[in-house]
Amino acid sequence: MKNVKGTRDFLPEEMILRQQVLEKMKSVFEIFGFQPLETPALEDWEVLSAKGAGGPEILKETYNFEDFGGRRVGLRFDLTVPLARVISSNPNLNLPFKRYQIQNVWRYGDVTKDRFREFLQADIDIVGSESMLADAEIIACVITTLTELGFKEFIVRLNNRKILTALAKYAGVPEDKVIDTFRTIDKLSKIGEEGVKKELLTKISKAATSTILEIIVNKKEPVLEELEKLVEDKEGFEELKQIISYLKQMKVKPKFEIDLSLARGLDYYTGPIFEVFAEKGIGSIAGGGRYDKMIGLFSGKDIPATGISFGIERMIEVMKERKMIEVKKSNVKVFVIAVNDKVRDKVLEIVQMLRNNSISVDFDLRSRSLSKQLDYANSLGIPNVIIVGEKELKNNSVKLKKMDTGKEISLKIDDMVKSF
Amino acid sequence: MKNVKGTRDFLPEEMILRQQVLEKMKSVFEIFGFQPLETPALEDWEVLSAKGAGGPEILKETYNFEDFGGRRVGLRFDLTVPLARVISSNPNLNLPFKRYQIQNVWRYGDVTKDRFREFLQADIDIVGSESMLADAEIIACVITTLTELGFKEFIVRLNNRKILTALAKYAGVPEDKVIDTFRTIDKLSKIGEEGVKKELLTKISKAATSTILEIIVNKKEPVLEELEKLVEDKEGFEELKQIISYLKQMKVKPKFEIDLSLARGLDYYTGPIFEVFAEKGIGSIAGGGRYDKMIGLFSGKDIPATGISFGIERMIEVMKERKMIEVKKSNVKVFVIAVNDKVRDKVLEIVQMLRNNSISVDFDLRSRSLSKQLDYANSLGIPNVIIVGEKELKNNSVKLKKMDTGKEISLKIDDMVKSF
Repeated sequence: MKNVKGTRDFLPEEMILRQQVLEKMKSVFEIFGFQPLETPALEDWEVLSAKGAGGPEILKETYNFEDFGGRRVGLRFDLTVPLARVISSNPNLNLPFKRYQIQNVWRYGDVTKDRFREFLQADIDIVGSESMLADAEIIACVITTLTELGFKEFIVRLNNRKILTALAKYAGVPEDKVIDTFRTIDKLSKIGEEGVKKELLTKISKAATSTILEIIVNKKEPVLEELEKLVEDKEGFEELKQIISYLKQMKVKPKFEIDLSLARGLDYYTGPIFEVFAEKGIGSIAGGGRYDKMIGLFSGKDIPATGISFGIERMIEVMKERKMIEVKKSNVKVFVIAVNDKVRDKVLEIVQMLRNNSISVDFDLRSRSLSKQLDYANSLGIPNVIIVGEKELKNNSVKLKKMDTGKEISLKIDDMVKSF
Repeated sequence: MKNVKGTRDFLPEEMILRQQVLEKMKSVFEIFGFQPLETPALEDWEVLSAKGAGGPEILKETYNFEDFGGRRVGLRFDLTVPLARVISSNPNLNLPFKRYQIQNVWRYGDVTKDRFREFLQADIDIVGSESMLADAEIIACVITTLTELGFKEFIVRLNNRKILTALAKYAGVPEDKVIDTFRTIDKLSKIGEEGVKKELLTKISKAATSTILEIIVNKKEPVLEELEKLVEDKEGFEELKQIISYLKQMKVKPKFEIDLSLARGLDYYTGPIFEVFAEKGIGSIAGGGRYDKMIGLFSGKDIPATGISFGIERMIEVMKERKMIEVKKSNVKVFVIAVNDKVRDKVLEIVQMLRNNSISVDFDLRSRSLSKQLDYANSLGIPNVIIVGEKELKNNSVKLKKMDTGKEISLKIDDMVKSF
């Protein structure tokens, strides 16, 4: 019997690697003052399907069912909606609330080499600050995290929902079609310009479609100032300039690119939106933005918030492919071997002695021969083997074999601990 | 809107505490040579409901539903069944396979102060050794883990399914009623002797019931030797003696108690079963046993296995109540404060400088007054505050306020990093 399609088992080799990545990420998040949060996998369907949360596209992929009590529940599709719920139900939290959250999410989508139905996300968010300093802090933390992990040459693509809204208004898109229009623009890299055009025409007028395409799709590097002159509401432009200025003060040095085709699929964004790309061939590895209205939908009181989500699965894939991370099958440092059954008692004693000194130790649990035990230690890549034999024991000694060189030395039992 | 009944949000204060506990546990598991494994939350219903896995009682509480593709899936109810599936679908694993797994499980049961529907479990298992040394290794690791966490005075209650089977045979319980009889005995502490008697009578004869009660329920500390004489199959008795002898060799010093009423609800146990109790008033905090047949049910080839599951939720509750663990709201070490807007640029610079030295730092993102910023740092229990003022800056200095004593000292910016 196998695991469910789109899910994975993480055997020790994979887990040790994933733990390394996550530990590094957590440590940077904490240096930036983010604190850990966890929420349940199960959420009421009412929460997941709330207006202004994930939106209809994502709900199509959201696992949901009636529990034994007849209540409709679902598995969370992201970590932002649960955060909004947490904030709304904890009105006494100290704001700003900076949290990180590293947990699985579930989406019933197509399964490919690097798209899964149960996958890990890592999010950092700042709740309770409307300052662009918070958005800059998020971007600075992302860049530092990725740098610590070994990624290089970042490009941060920036846009702002307010700019998109202003431009949509300028293009004559009716107000109730604005979010729908963004959803279509967001598909640009997926369905291409022709696809976007076709879809837009089913939603808005021919004139509006061609203006939108003209401004947004064809001007990959638009002259911001020109566009700013066109629209009434200039706030979005101001915000982007401020973020970039803060990041310069923070001495964060990625390249910035204003990309008006960056819309991001989720319904809840209200201000700056951003996506982080690492060196060539890697693509987007983190994306997020500001969502000042979502928490209000849950609590009735607007609380500004901004954050970003790391594409951890993709990051780990890249780090493996590019050998940016140490791969090993076991964390065991020493394997203790008995040459025969007579010394097995002594093995237990030596194992105990090493473990009491916090050294990671394993030993044979199957009464295997010396060579079988060596094979086992070797196949797991355990670097040190202690061989306990009758002759050495008479001198209160054991043999230490370094598995990388094959070199063997004799070691007094009393000096053993110091060797690791 | 709230979280689903029986689930919990873990705010930073709770998470920091939980992370401390889990980090300690992981580190002991690794010292004992256990390696990390993770499996998906979603499992095919076929796997969860396999004969000889959890059994009918647990399936009544197991969340399950049809996914969008019409496939019946469920949320795992324990970590042992997924392990068996992993072993069966990875025939090339090096055996023995020692793994730890710390993940949530889901059960739709009654919700009480310390019973939840989504809760954490931590399991250690050894797959591929039929030696009682493996069972002893499991128990030794549990005792060491609990000791490291600050628990004391352990009692390990031991029993063996083989003994129970032999005694059931002696009592005249028909073979097909043996597991059912165990399930009832297991409820002794829940429904009392009268309850057990009533339930047994619906399943087996009056004579068998009274013999079972005589032997198992009324003899809390049975004279093993006497019982051993009664039964044909003495293997279970031999195994228990061996485990105890290995634990003595390993210098593990809990008290042992043979408890024939210990049956453990799950269907899959085949040999020794054990439960670990800590000092008075705490009750059972870990339980497990040997299950030599379950993996075979998945793969067609029997592979022996033994393991234990920690009642983490209960452990954490006890550790909180008994103040065995440090409670704090934030991991931030330093909060940097601007006395007014003129020095906010300098704050960014100082924050950056400290963070570059891996110090966990936060600062104001809301343009608040000095006293509001101090209140914020104080309410989160952040131990150090750096106050950046115009006068000090002229001397390349800042003020450092120790929040526990309220003491303030002047600090050269260049010497700042050394202070933390």
